[in-house]
Amino acid sequence: MTEVATARRSRITPEREAELYGAVLDLLREVGYDALTMDAVAARTKSSKATLYRQWGSKAELVVRALRHMKPGASGIAAIDTGSLRGDFHALVLRDDDCTMEQNSALMRALGMAIQDNPDLLRAFRELLIEPEMAEFRKVLQRAVDRGEIRVDNPALDYVLHMLIGAFAARSIIDELPPTQAFLGSYIDAVVLPALGVPIPSTP
Amino acid sequence: MTEVATARRSRITPEREAELYGAVLDLLREVGYDALTMDAVAARTKSSKATLYRQWGSKAELVVRALRHMKPGASGIAAIDTGSLRGDFHALVLRDDDCTMEQNSALMRALGMAIQDNPDLLRAFRELLIEPEMAEFRKVLQRAVDRGEIRVDNPALDYVLHMLIGAFAARSIIDELPPTQAFLGSYIDAVVLPALGVPIPSTP
Repeated sequence: MTEVATARRSRITPEREAELYGAVLDLLREVGYDALTMDAVAARTKSSKATLYRQWGSKAELVVRALRHMKPGASGIAAIDTGSLRGDFHALVLRDDDCTMEQNSALMRALGMAIQDNPDLLRAFRELLIEPEMAEFRKVLQRAVDRGEIRVDNPALDYVLHMLIGAFAARSIIDELPPTQAFLGSYIDAVVLPALGVPIPSTP
Repeated sequence: MTEVATARRSRITPEREAELYGAVLDLLREVGYDALTMDAVAARTKSSKATLYRQWGSKAELVVRALRHMKPGASGIAAIDTGSLRGDFHALVLRDDDCTMEQNSALMRALGMAIQDNPDLLRAFRELLIEPEMAEFRKVLQRAVDRGEIRVDNPALDYVLHMLIGAFAARSIIDELPPTQAFLGSYIDAVVLPALGVPIPSTP
């Protein structure tokens, strides 16, 4: 399957692939997953539906590949290594500017409903995005445990992604504001690090 | 507007109103907000579209009234007063059984996308649900501050709803499991109370 998919995708240039993925994500934000049709992607990108199906096989695969392309995540997170957990978390927040975060927040809302109705989309989403991100976070947290910053039996270790993704998702509904670097930085100091037992300098 | 709405609604019995709201929420979970039409509500509830518009004026008002009917929230939260913040939070989690929480989680996903595209829905949602709930939470937290359980300047006080709603929303996407009483109880002890500086008994 992976080999087939690679063979399929190798027929278009990386530039064209990036352009197609960008159009897919724009459509996803604009109309949501259900209303995003291969027809609409073909029209927006001036390609044929047959080409899209030949390259990606299904709408779910096309959408998740587009998300993964936008968010290489897996390789990036653990590469951040500032020497302290607080430094790592704040560096992570600074990777995406506020505009990108607002777009990601819209994408997450667009996918929330679709994921529960489309098991193939949920599976692809977890395999290609959530699980690699969790694996990277575990490395960052393990380094903090090894440095003695977090106790290895701290129960909040199991909930780091829930805290971060949750605050990201809840921000717009609670405050009518998109998540920003300033919001997430403040949330990390007020909630995530205290829950993990990591002290915050009194004048940050 | 409120008087008009009351006059409108008074024409049907409370039982019929509850039945209609139940059907609206079922449809919302099944098809999402965009695909939920007054036609579909009329068909499901064997009522006329004219009646629905006369009673509720708009789809956004009907949906938010249905949500509010299901979740009286505002009057319930601060009435919980166990004498400790941990007791209050755990009692709050036990108010909804796991089946109800799974349904609420599906409703939240169904609304996530719609809220960003429908300003009238977002406004009604915030006025009728989020703001009353925040006001109630502030009372629960103020009691904990008055008892000396939380320092009045603890920055996590601003993020209690983000922590709770966030974990609720992130659970299904991260773990492919619905939020449950056990999950939220564990999250409260591992994250929410430590962030607020409230000690957890070592054998809960």
